[in-house]
Formats: sequence, C-alpha cells, structure tokens
Amino acid sequence: MTITIEDVWAATERINAFAHRTPVLRSHSLDQMVGAELHFKAENFQRVGAFKFRGACNAVWSLDDAEAAQGVVTHSSGNHGQALALAAQTRGIPAYVVMPEDSAKPKLAAVRGYGAEAILCASNLDAREQTCAEVQQRTGAVMIHPYADHRIIAGQATAALELLCEIGHVDSLIAPVSGGGLLAGSALSLGALCPSAQIIGAEPEGANDAWLSMQAGELRGISKPNTICDGLRANLGALNFEILQLHQAQILTVSDAETVAAMRLVWERMNIIIEPSCATVVAVLLRYREQFAGQRVGLILSGGNVDLDALPWAR
Amino acid sequence: MTITIEDVWAATERINAFAHRTPVLRSHSLDQMVGAELHFKAENFQRVGAFKFRGACNAVWSLDDAEAAQGVVTHSSGNHGQALALAAQTRGIPAYVVMPEDSAKPKLAAVRGYGAEAILCASNLDAREQTCAEVQQRTGAVMIHPYADHRIIAGQATAALELLCEIGHVDSLIAPVSGGGLLAGSALSLGALCPSAQIIGAEPEGANDAWLSMQAGELRGISKPNTICDGLRANLGALNFEILQLHQAQILTVSDAETVAAMRLVWERMNIIIEPSCATVVAVLLRYREQFAGQRVGLILSGGNVDLDALPWAR
Repeated sequence: MTITIEDVWAATERINAFAHRTPVLRSHSLDQMVGAELHFKAENFQRVGAFKFRGACNAVWSLDDAEAAQGVVTHSSGNHGQALALAAQTRGIPAYVVMPEDSAKPKLAAVRGYGAEAILCASNLDAREQTCAEVQQRTGAVMIHPYADHRIIAGQATAALELLCEIGHVDSLIAPVSGGGLLAGSALSLGALCPSAQIIGAEPEGANDAWLSMQAGELRGISKPNTICDGLRANLGALNFEILQLHQAQILTVSDAETVAAMRLVWERMNIIIEPSCATVVAVLLRYREQFAGQRVGLILSGGNVDLDALPWAR
Repeated sequence: MTITIEDVWAATERINAFAHRTPVLRSHSLDQMVGAELHFKAENFQRVGAFKFRGACNAVWSLDDAEAAQGVVTHSSGNHGQALALAAQTRGIPAYVVMPEDSAKPKLAAVRGYGAEAILCASNLDAREQTCAEVQQRTGAVMIHPYADHRIIAGQATAALELLCEIGHVDSLIAPVSGGGLLAGSALSLGALCPSAQIIGAEPEGANDAWLSMQAGELRGISKPNTICDGLRANLGALNFEILQLHQAQILTVSDAETVAAMRLVWERMNIIIEPSCATVVAVLLRYREQFAGQRVGLILSGGNVDLDALPWAR
C-alpha cells in the first residue's frame, strides 16, 4: 500500500483536535557550534512526551465506528503504549497494551492512567505477539503495530509536515530511526515539500540495522541491540525500509557516548529535556558537522521521557 | 521617578530586535493538579537563559550615544552579569562585571564569552560596591543596578506584557521576588492591562524579606538569607517595594523542599529545565492551590540555569 502526502494531510486533520502543534525552537549556540541554521521540532512537548501520539491518534481515528467499538491492542514497553492508550481515550474506546512483566512501574501507571488495560507477559517478542493475538481473539480489538503500519507512518509524518509548513525549505532533515515509523513518515513529507533535500536517519552504532539494511540493499536485522537509547532497539519494518529506499535515506550512526554528550548539551544550552533516543539527532549533527556546514537543517526532537533518578552522565 | 506602561512599551521596542519573544506553554497535568488554567511564560528560553536579558538590554539601549560609549558596569555573580555582558555586546560597547573571586568558573567563562571584562573582588557587598565605584571612576562606565533601576524594571515588565498580549485576561499573575525587578515590572504590566487581577510574588521562606516588608508596611531586610534559590537572596529595593505597595502585591512563601519538588515536577511533566529560583512560582501554585481553583493564572518562569552535576534531588 503506497502512502502519499494526501494521507499525511488527512492525518493532520484527524489529529489536529487532540495533538499539540509543537513549537519549532532555535539555538544561537548550537547554530554556532555546527555552522548551520538549525530548526528543532520539539516533539518532546507532544502529548505523552513523544511524537508517538501522532501515529497512534491517526490510527485510532482512521477506524470506522464498528472497528473502533472493539478497541485497539498493541505490544509496547514504551511511548507507543502510552500514546495508543491516550489516543483510544480521545475516542472513548478500549485499549489493551501488552507489556513485559518487568516493565517499570511508572510506565504501567501511565498506561493505566490513560484508561487502558495493561496486560503483562514474559519479556520476549514471541510472548508479546502471542499475547496480542490472544487479546485480539478474545476482544476483537484491532492490532495497531508501533511502526510497520501505514496509518502510523502517515501520523508520524505530520511532525515534519508541520515543521516544513512553518519554516519552509530545508537542505537536510534528521530524525532518529528504529522501526522506521518516524523516519519513513518524515521522508514522505520531505519528499513532497522539499524533494531536493536529504532525509537522514540517526541511529546508535549498537543498533545499526537500518545502516546495515541500506548498505546491503535488503532488510537486515540485529538480534541483540546494545545501546542506552531504549526507544531505538527495534528493527526496521519492511514497509518502512521500502519508503527509506525510495527516498534514498542516508543513515548516520553515533556512539552512546556521543549521544549522552549531545543530550547534556541540549539540556544545558536549550533548557529542554530530551531523551537519549532523541539526542541521537544532535549527536549526528555534531559528529558529521562538515556535511551540514552552511545548511538549513530541520531536526525532529522525538521525545523527552527520561528517568531523572538515572541520568546517564551520573553513572 | 514613576514608571508607566508607556515606558514598558518603549522597552519592548528597544529590545525586540535582540530578545526572544518566548513561548507561552500549557500543561494538561498541572492544570488538573491545581484545578486552574495555567499559562507559563517560558523565560528559561530567553537569551542567557533568564528574563534578566530584558532589563539589561533595555538599560543598555536607553543610554544616549555619549553615555554608551563609556560602557556599563554592574556587580553580579549570576544571570544579571551575563545579561548585561550580552546586552552591551549587542550595542558594541564595553561591559565591566564585578564578580566575587569565588565565582564558579562556568559563570566567569560565560561573562567573558559575551565579551565583557570580569573583575574579581572579595565576596562581600562592601567590596563589590567599592570595586564598582572604582571601575566607574576609572572608565566613566554607567552603573546598571540589577533591580533598583527604572530601566531594569521597565525591561523586566515586558515579559508579563507579552504574556498578557498573547493570552488576554488573567485572574492572577505569579512571579518570583528577590530584589523585585521582575515582580515590580510584572505588577506594572498587570496593573495596566488587567487592573482587577492579583499580582503575587513567590518567595523562599528562608529569604522572606519581601513578605516581612509587605506585612510591616515598610522595607525590611534579611542579612543572612538561607535558601537553595541562588537567584532569590537579594533584599527588595526601595523603588521596587514602592511599586509592590502601590499594586497591593501579595507575597506567598514556600519551603525549599516544596521548591525542589515543584522543580522536579516541571522537569518531568513539561520536559523543560527550570532553576530552583524559578520553581518557587510552581511551588506557590501547589501549596496555595485553593486560592487559584477555577482561575486563569499567568506564571513567569524566570530562568533555567542549573548545574546538571548538582541536582537538588540527588543530594
């Protein structure tokens, strides 16, 4: 199924009443450090603290009334679960979030706080998928995959669309890449509005399956990702990979040390809180600064959900 | 000298080319916790990370060319020194910042990074004032006091003016109070635009000279302030006190523990970094929430300059 910019506009209309139109931030000092004109789309200010609400909200409001009445189900230990729970709440339908039994308590509390049912399972992919299937069978709920879903991709694409509509042309646009919902969506919006610009995925060296896949020209997975970026451990989806190939996405990798330094720099210079997964885009900017010199660069700050008792520079 | 809203408009015109028009932020969860409609003016995103740049910039651009050519001088160990240094840089004139010899290195580096001369002196008020006087005599520089100055007050008043022009009527407006530049300025803007609204100063219990002064009906000082709020240790200025009396400001005090809890809450729920001095306004909101129930409340988030290696909840 091909996703077009029309689908992204439709997503914008669906989510407008519920999602924040997040601000675009500037930073004198980061501009000077990189020698570029930087525009940061602050999705860390999005509802549930991450861009994930856009896709979840679009998916929930894409369902027809009969489907919606059965509710929605997903497996997620992170932001997608909370996002789907809140999205379901905006429509007043049930949400079932399958989570590993060792999930942190605040994450369980957040999902339940949005009115969803948290369903615990063993902490491996097989158990998650099986539990999801059981919930689907029992309730009739619609499965909303975290990234390999055209409704999710169109929803995540609205962040880049808003950014470009606000600031106009960019030379490059950088977003983190994990399963590829955000990056594929960003590629779609950029391809339509600034077709000559370069779409770039920021990826941890210890979870570089997107980099490997783009190099190989075919989907490659990593079984044991090793990175502090807890939002970037998933492997690229097939649908997502197709879109990245179509738009000739460039994947740039960074070490966790570079990511932590970039995260701290943003906290200190911009006075905003971003999470490690999000800081990869700034780490890319700094590590590969020659590539961006003199450019107008858009960056998607994907989220800001951090445990303040376990800051990476305090370890 | 009486300061009017016309002076505030004039300040707005002077600083517009240099200061950020900071965003007004909302928070669903804080609204729910307080039972009020909250509008946060995010001066932690202002240049140098604090509202102080507004007053300093207005003062520097209020000088005639002959005065300006001699430069400006102040004593400050904190945000005002950096703010004056940057303001002087925008006009291309010298700035002399008298700082205690035990000032933290990053603060010295910041002042020098903005092109100012940092002049070290012993860490007491007498030494600071004497050193300032010497610099004035030697260079002819104009003294710009951190708060007891009509140009500074008119400049700080622009933050509340922008907030009110953007959101319209409020029932209450809360700002931190120390020397009273920001609170007196906010009182001026509120008095002109929403004369029936209540202006409120947030003050640490351990530095409650404004509270004592308003109770007594005359200026009272505290010689040994005891609070982690390093920006709120100064005593109220006489000019500032007059304005607070005129506008019947209410002073509400909070403990440092309440301030730290409020700071952490804002970091977690709003994903922005605010400093302890700034968190007092949110601590007031939570401690006295009955007073604000059902109200539309404006809050000035004064700054976000924090040492990330010494977070108060990690002690």
